[in-house]
Amino acid sequence: MRDLYRAIHGRRDVRGEFNGEPIPAEILSRVLSAAHAAPSVGLSQPWDFIVVDDGATRAAFAAHVAAERQVFAASLPEDLAERFADIKIEGIAESSLSLVVTYDAARGAPFVLGRHAIADAGLYSVCLAIENLWLAATAEGMGVGWVSFYRESFLRELLCIPESVRPVAWLCVGPVSRLHAVPDLERHGWRLRLALEDVVHYNAWGVRTNERPLRPVSGGES
Amino acid sequence: MRDLYRAIHGRRDVRGEFNGEPIPAEILSRVLSAAHAAPSVGLSQPWDFIVVDDGATRAAFAAHVAAERQVFAASLPEDLAERFADIKIEGIAESSLSLVVTYDAARGAPFVLGRHAIADAGLYSVCLAIENLWLAATAEGMGVGWVSFYRESFLRELLCIPESVRPVAWLCVGPVSRLHAVPDLERHGWRLRLALEDVVHYNAWGVRTNERPLRPVSGGES
Repeated sequence: MRDLYRAIHGRRDVRGEFNGEPIPAEILSRVLSAAHAAPSVGLSQPWDFIVVDDGATRAAFAAHVAAERQVFAASLPEDLAERFADIKIEGIAESSLSLVVTYDAARGAPFVLGRHAIADAGLYSVCLAIENLWLAATAEGMGVGWVSFYRESFLRELLCIPESVRPVAWLCVGPVSRLHAVPDLERHGWRLRLALEDVVHYNAWGVRTNERPLRPVSGGES
Repeated sequence: MRDLYRAIHGRRDVRGEFNGEPIPAEILSRVLSAAHAAPSVGLSQPWDFIVVDDGATRAAFAAHVAAERQVFAASLPEDLAERFADIKIEGIAESSLSLVVTYDAARGAPFVLGRHAIADAGLYSVCLAIENLWLAATAEGMGVGWVSFYRESFLRELLCIPESVRPVAWLCVGPVSRLHAVPDLERHGWRLRLALEDVVHYNAWGVRTNERPLRPVSGGES
């Protein structure tokens, strides 16, 4: 249990600490197997993982990300733009390799058990796999950095991903020199972590103590 | 590392094995803290957790889920409808309590770092928190069952969730008599687990061996 909590609380979104050392094949297999063991709606397993170690492909993606960085920077008021200028947003070239994770809505369709009322449930499954991957990589002494400064259409074309499949994440992965105790964005004063109490409610939205809410409840008793 | 992999591979989507015993407060705190430690785009932490232990609220939700079960069942061809009839889809009443997880797109907005190009990145963050929660609960000897047979509007109204906040998951949580080695849907012959090789590609979609893909790559070299 301790290892799990160590991975959960020690995990970071890594940009600057990749050392570029190769990932042993058995470690990459364990990490991908962890991702593939995630829960999925209707056992649809709608994820795919593209291992990207090709230098030209990574360079092309990094150039696109740099352009999108400028798009975001240009949208910011001056004080935020200054703060953003100091923040590294990707480690595409320095990391050992990248893993691109995608969502295929057609897998197991049309009768995906648990998706008829919530179309996005399949997309949610893919994210569960990403978190498994992230924790496994952390436990293996590696870092993961999710890069989201990109247009899905660009990434789809870059990796020949079919139109029906949606890119969900570009993850930089590899051994790191260290994992910071404090998230990058907190260290840079971009945002603070919230207290747990701020995001927990009881039985209804906005009820902050664990007493029964004073409101009518459909159903009879209460 | 072993504990982490044990949780990842032993985790199940639980319906029938909840024993209803109470969850000690410190365990619930650890599980929610694990969720709250998830990565989030721009450190936005856009999740909220509603602890639902009220019986009438759970009963109302269960009735709604039962109706949605019928909606799905009616959509199935006969053979699948028969198989579905044997599959339990929720343990709302039998589990110790439920945790509803939501997404607040306004948190940290308008300048969420990493979300300008991918609006769904915030929603993805919420799912990462859900997987942390699921793994922590598993490591604590509990089970989690994600119920997705519901309409978001119904759940929003039931728990007084604001219009601007999106319900993402209803999770049944609590101690269990056991976790099955094989997922329910596999045991019932609904779907099989895929081999890892079936979902891994190299440098481009559809390339199944780790050789450089034979295609032009924008960027120059290769």
